[in-house]
Amino acid sequence: MAEKQLGGAGLRGQVAGKTALSTVGVSGSGLTYLGYDVKDLAEHCEFEEVAYLIFYGKLPNRGELADYKALLKTKRGLPAALREVLERIPADAHPMDVMRTGCSMLGNLETEADFSQQLDQANRMLAAFPSIICYWYRYSHDGDRIETETDDDTIGAHFLHMLHGKKPNALHERVMNVSLILYAEHEFNASTFTARVCASTLSDLHSCVTGAIGSLRGPLHGGANEAAMAMIQNWTSVEEAEAGIMGMLERKEKIMGFGHAIYRESDPRNEIIKGWSEKLAKEVGDDVLYPVSVRCEEVMWREKKLFCNADFFHASAYHFMGIPTKLFTPIFVCSRLTGWAAHVFEQRADNRIIRPSAEYTGADLRPVPPIESR
Amino acid sequence: MAEKQLGGAGLRGQVAGKTALSTVGVSGSGLTYLGYDVKDLAEHCEFEEVAYLIFYGKLPNRGELADYKALLKTKRGLPAALREVLERIPADAHPMDVMRTGCSMLGNLETEADFSQQLDQANRMLAAFPSIICYWYRYSHDGDRIETETDDDTIGAHFLHMLHGKKPNALHERVMNVSLILYAEHEFNASTFTARVCASTLSDLHSCVTGAIGSLRGPLHGGANEAAMAMIQNWTSVEEAEAGIMGMLERKEKIMGFGHAIYRESDPRNEIIKGWSEKLAKEVGDDVLYPVSVRCEEVMWREKKLFCNADFFHASAYHFMGIPTKLFTPIFVCSRLTGWAAHVFEQRADNRIIRPSAEYTGADLRPVPPIESR
Repeated sequence: MAEKQLGGAGLRGQVAGKTALSTVGVSGSGLTYLGYDVKDLAEHCEFEEVAYLIFYGKLPNRGELADYKALLKTKRGLPAALREVLERIPADAHPMDVMRTGCSMLGNLETEADFSQQLDQANRMLAAFPSIICYWYRYSHDGDRIETETDDDTIGAHFLHMLHGKKPNALHERVMNVSLILYAEHEFNASTFTARVCASTLSDLHSCVTGAIGSLRGPLHGGANEAAMAMIQNWTSVEEAEAGIMGMLERKEKIMGFGHAIYRESDPRNEIIKGWSEKLAKEVGDDVLYPVSVRCEEVMWREKKLFCNADFFHASAYHFMGIPTKLFTPIFVCSRLTGWAAHVFEQRADNRIIRPSAEYTGADLRPVPPIESR
Repeated sequence: MAEKQLGGAGLRGQVAGKTALSTVGVSGSGLTYLGYDVKDLAEHCEFEEVAYLIFYGKLPNRGELADYKALLKTKRGLPAALREVLERIPADAHPMDVMRTGCSMLGNLETEADFSQQLDQANRMLAAFPSIICYWYRYSHDGDRIETETDDDTIGAHFLHMLHGKKPNALHERVMNVSLILYAEHEFNASTFTARVCASTLSDLHSCVTGAIGSLRGPLHGGANEAAMAMIQNWTSVEEAEAGIMGMLERKEKIMGFGHAIYRESDPRNEIIKGWSEKLAKEVGDDVLYPVSVRCEEVMWREKKLFCNADFFHASAYHFMGIPTKLFTPIFVCSRLTGWAAHVFEQRADNRIIRPSAEYTGADLRPVPPIESR
């Protein structure tokens, strides 16, 4: 068959399929989930409402939301074999490798037998992923075999409760809700596209999500908030931050948490998480990390016209809630799982195996020389 | 940016990148690895020569091959934590879930710290994957904790030795070599493309391969030889096979092991594995399964002009060597790992993150209604 040469590497700007789940960067800056602006959702909803929206296609009413949260609460426990696997992963492992392995192991124990189970399986993962990362973290770092079946009202509170061993206050629970909403879905990014390619072979949901976790692990995709944290915690004043950024720019070092592959003018998620980071700074009495972050934003805009993306103020926000930096990207997983799973459902509903062609740049046909004459 | 609409679903016929590793279906039927015809390689080489070719870009001379095989032999052992994980996967798990989890767990214990380790990591997986699947299989099915560090000369012999508890004869070792060569590499198929999408985020090799295993698990991709086996073992004579196939065609049932997404006239791998299946049939005194397979081939060509692909005669060949059907696709993994890893190396050497666009088919922008009015 005739082959079409694509214009750019990385399929940039090439339509690789259809989705009804989200729009990214339409009119330059927007992000919508099923037609709802992410700012609107982050202001008015809990994460569970948004997860319900993405999985079921509509916002839940009060009864549906109560039922959904009750359902998720029943799915927080981990099978003994999975806990035993997590206990064998060392404390110095990459937390994304832990998530990838935890998801894959869950697939051995609770295999998706057929696609009629896909929503049950996705809800199970949504409830169990915070348990997986916190169980491993607390066991490998503190030696504690934590109870993951808590009665916390939301996924965000469940996560903080397991991590810190006590229920979070209302502000922290609210910020977790906002954060999980902001990261939930983002069209055909690389991890979501990984999930769709896998889904196109009609593989199971655990395979799709395991693959997506592996892609999100890459430093060009997830992990920017961890890198931003590593940077800003070096500085103890706004003057140091200014000098530090200027030096990095001079040395042409990569500065994470700024700019975006799709957004051109701003990342709509930034102003939301920035506002919450400021509230958290006040709560903990911070007078360094938040001002330092703001100065970084000002310098990057002044010098490079680069704006903060969703990741930059997530760094300080998570830090103010006592979340260890290495768990930032696993939280991203706990949220983006909703988008990944919904894209798998969409791919399955109108599937053709994703199998592109390649331009061959290698050797011409040649005979195999006998081993004696090589 | 302007978006280009693609002609077909699934990126079919669309160039998504460059490769120097293989050509598929050029002039209608061929398959070459780095310029060498797969028939030529399957006739003259051991699998280790082809793995070396794919990883290092040249066929090894006698000394290089001896060194390479010696190196791989040292990498067959599994860490205790990985063995303990495999022991916690039940006997009724999907063997591809076992491979996916085994690879992912290995990544926790022996993480690729930077890309300078990529060849070492790929060689480690090449040596360890047969150990992973056989260790799980023998423990879960027979209760045996097998020794995986054998002194077998080749990967194929290592696999059969662990599976059966004794060294294979020369014919079986040869057929394993041929089979592993035939499955080693196949351009931008869905699992390889999964590995490349993951690699494009600059993620680690274990993530890329774990994702690829998940895609190969899908029934539209791997598993055709298992499905072929399940079909042919129903029939005890060529007459039953003929009637069976005719009935399936009449009922428009999917018949696995025939036709191909890229090849139009024949699959070049079929005549090779068919010849070896015939030799194995003679060795074991079979007068049912091989003739039944030949009759299936004849009927499918006569009725539908559909040819056998690589998978069809693999079913009988593996069966004659005493390999349980559920391990057919994991053998595919042990072979295709070479192609996956080499594509990851290629992607890393000239990378741009693979991030296509989507055509939006969803709801228009709308306000979030208060929960009371939903």
